[in-house]
Amino acid sequence: MEFSPSFPFPNLPESPHKRIVILGAGFAGLKLAQKLIGADYQVILIDKNNYHQFQPLFYQVATSGLEPSAISFPLRKIFHHHRNVSVRMAEVKAIDQYAQKVYTPSGFIHYDYLVLALGADTNYFGLQQIKERSIPMKSVSEALYLRNRIIANYEKAMNTFDETERKALMNIVIVGGGPTGVELAGAMAELKNMILPKDYPELDFSQMQVILAEAGTSLLAGMSNEASTHAFKYLKSLGVEIIFNASVKDYDGDTVRVEGYPDFNTKTLVWAAGIKPNAIEGLQPDQLGPGGRLIVNEYNQLKDALNIFALGDQCLQASSDRPRGYPQVAQVAMQQASNLATNLRRWSLDKEPKPFKYKDLGSMATVGRKLAVVDLPFLKFQGFLAWLTWLFVHLMAILGVRNKVFIFLNWAWAYLSFDVSLRLLIRPKYVKEQERKEMIEDKE
Amino acid sequence: MEFSPSFPFPNLPESPHKRIVILGAGFAGLKLAQKLIGADYQVILIDKNNYHQFQPLFYQVATSGLEPSAISFPLRKIFHHHRNVSVRMAEVKAIDQYAQKVYTPSGFIHYDYLVLALGADTNYFGLQQIKERSIPMKSVSEALYLRNRIIANYEKAMNTFDETERKALMNIVIVGGGPTGVELAGAMAELKNMILPKDYPELDFSQMQVILAEAGTSLLAGMSNEASTHAFKYLKSLGVEIIFNASVKDYDGDTVRVEGYPDFNTKTLVWAAGIKPNAIEGLQPDQLGPGGRLIVNEYNQLKDALNIFALGDQCLQASSDRPRGYPQVAQVAMQQASNLATNLRRWSLDKEPKPFKYKDLGSMATVGRKLAVVDLPFLKFQGFLAWLTWLFVHLMAILGVRNKVFIFLNWAWAYLSFDVSLRLLIRPKYVKEQERKEMIEDKE
Repeated sequence: MEFSPSFPFPNLPESPHKRIVILGAGFAGLKLAQKLIGADYQVILIDKNNYHQFQPLFYQVATSGLEPSAISFPLRKIFHHHRNVSVRMAEVKAIDQYAQKVYTPSGFIHYDYLVLALGADTNYFGLQQIKERSIPMKSVSEALYLRNRIIANYEKAMNTFDETERKALMNIVIVGGGPTGVELAGAMAELKNMILPKDYPELDFSQMQVILAEAGTSLLAGMSNEASTHAFKYLKSLGVEIIFNASVKDYDGDTVRVEGYPDFNTKTLVWAAGIKPNAIEGLQPDQLGPGGRLIVNEYNQLKDALNIFALGDQCLQASSDRPRGYPQVAQVAMQQASNLATNLRRWSLDKEPKPFKYKDLGSMATVGRKLAVVDLPFLKFQGFLAWLTWLFVHLMAILGVRNKVFIFLNWAWAYLSFDVSLRLLIRPKYVKEQERKEMIEDKE
Repeated sequence: MEFSPSFPFPNLPESPHKRIVILGAGFAGLKLAQKLIGADYQVILIDKNNYHQFQPLFYQVATSGLEPSAISFPLRKIFHHHRNVSVRMAEVKAIDQYAQKVYTPSGFIHYDYLVLALGADTNYFGLQQIKERSIPMKSVSEALYLRNRIIANYEKAMNTFDETERKALMNIVIVGGGPTGVELAGAMAELKNMILPKDYPELDFSQMQVILAEAGTSLLAGMSNEASTHAFKYLKSLGVEIIFNASVKDYDGDTVRVEGYPDFNTKTLVWAAGIKPNAIEGLQPDQLGPGGRLIVNEYNQLKDALNIFALGDQCLQASSDRPRGYPQVAQVAMQQASNLATNLRRWSLDKEPKPFKYKDLGSMATVGRKLAVVDLPFLKFQGFLAWLTWLFVHLMAILGVRNKVFIFLNWAWAYLSFDVSLRLLIRPKYVKEQERKEMIEDKE
């Protein structure tokens, strides 16, 4: 193992209980830690950030609808009054299954139980040019980057004579017709229709294109036909250009090449076309399934490792009716986490564990400021009522009363005023020399 | 002149009126543009950012009390419905007084009247080491940087065995006993007393020092003795260590050297000890006064240039009772801008201009979450009532109903809950190669 400091991680609290180390504070890791509050375990929750990110609303950060802080929740605050859970910010590099250790740059941590909940990151399918030049949407930091890029491009469009360049600065191409692509395309189209022309009266917005490119033949492939066709209709009515069977091949920063289509000029290519599970050193080849997902049994136990668990997007839990595993969505992650918390408590009492059973509660996506599509197990509906449902469900899912209040006010304000005030280009202009070096080293 | 593109700035609107170009959208430049709404002038407002920054609350951004967006106002939105004012985001490099042109990287702009309102930046008094390693507080981006540095340092403090390093990570030294230094020290002390120990239960906060170093012999030198002594008392009661006659000599990133004092260990040195006016190429040596301030007459006309004006921190307007000019504060900037707007309207009607008369409305500073000091022309008071006054005055000064509502709710929440949720380390981790290069080039 390349990276293995020989000193222990500092300042870990003492505990008479067995230690569960959770890697990742996404929907799975955070839910598990919350469900283990007060249990007879010492829980160490490790994430590379000091906050949990509410991924379903990244597109609103990207389109200036919400502040990053509204959908990011400081982990330490969640566990203020619960001393059996400790939060550590660290980038986990590797695990050692035999020594039962997790390796971070700050030292190693011994575990009795290890939970891998590192989630998934953007999959560029080996397209190196696109990886370097497109913008992903898998973190609040990336969503904020996209927002800044869009605003900077509009300011640049004001300052250029070159008409081709101006169009490229105004256009946006979004790849991937899943929920992220659909919601982002809808929000961008509304910016184009209602907000940007007021900000930039000198620009001709009839020239601006919002293009959604989907490799398959329908939008929201994981949802019902009704949802898919309504999302298509709604996006069309907002002015989004949707292309199907669109296999994006290359991007040089100005021109997107799509097989079977003419080239598209844009300085903003958003890549929401696929994910792959985050990798970690120290796993055996036969513990990995197709695409690098970790093979787990019905108790989310990693193959050949009874004290290691994997949850959510990172794991592959095949069942008789789902031989290729469950969809990589928040619901599965949270339900698996709840079940594991129950089992960990049962094991500590020498009780039999319960196998995971997925209960599909349905799914939904929003298109613009008053339309959405909702698939419930026994009911599908679309339109304004679906949008209200979407609003309510997401508001309830947001952590903390303060965040609920602020997001609700933000939404209400945006809805009533047709405007938001967040079109600020606060760029990381001010960075000290040392951090600059670190950023360059961080670069893959 | 090194920088002088020979092409005109693109996309400027046509107008039958004379053109006023305002450089800088701080308190002076923004107020002037607002006062010229609807006047028979074409106004071009240029700033390097696309937003106005509300400097009095930077310290709250730095201490996780407010989001950057709460005190940053998109310029374009302010002038949505006022077509005689155009906003352009550009960095102005130079002016040519004889050709009546302003030079930006996007082209030159011809002016009939030019207003220099570029404000002031941090003055390091030639201390190169301190310039490279300390953190200034003259922009919302810098305040956000300070916030991120403080949070990152606490996360690092959790992950180190080295006690000296841990103390250096926890300590903060603030240089400058003006309003910025006092308000920041108060807010940091409250973080220490009320918030951080909950976030980091494993750290010993009795070891954390908040040090305020002032080169003179009193705090808030521009205010009354009562204000100064009360600010001292309030900060002391919060646990701030205040040192006077403290001339900071050097800083290597770990140790601050102060003449006549023992060394201080800190990874966070905040420099709020002085300002200097922002410079621009194309001025004559005899147009510059002491410290680089632009010499103007009682109509804010630049010396030897009847169609150029300078406002606010950038100008030096001597009067019989103030031979060294007015203090460099927001009030002076805004009153000068109002007077200039009046005069520009009067000149267009061939009326006599009015000389500037400063009306000192008083000044105030806050110390912590319920104390402040207020100096009004005929009344000085301190304590909780002063804090309510401070709150009200600042809330009224904030632009926009939405921002007022959100900031008020934020403050109310923080006051009632003793906590804020903004301790998020959302760093510019995600930066593309090109921007990285630009950032390095931006470095002076």
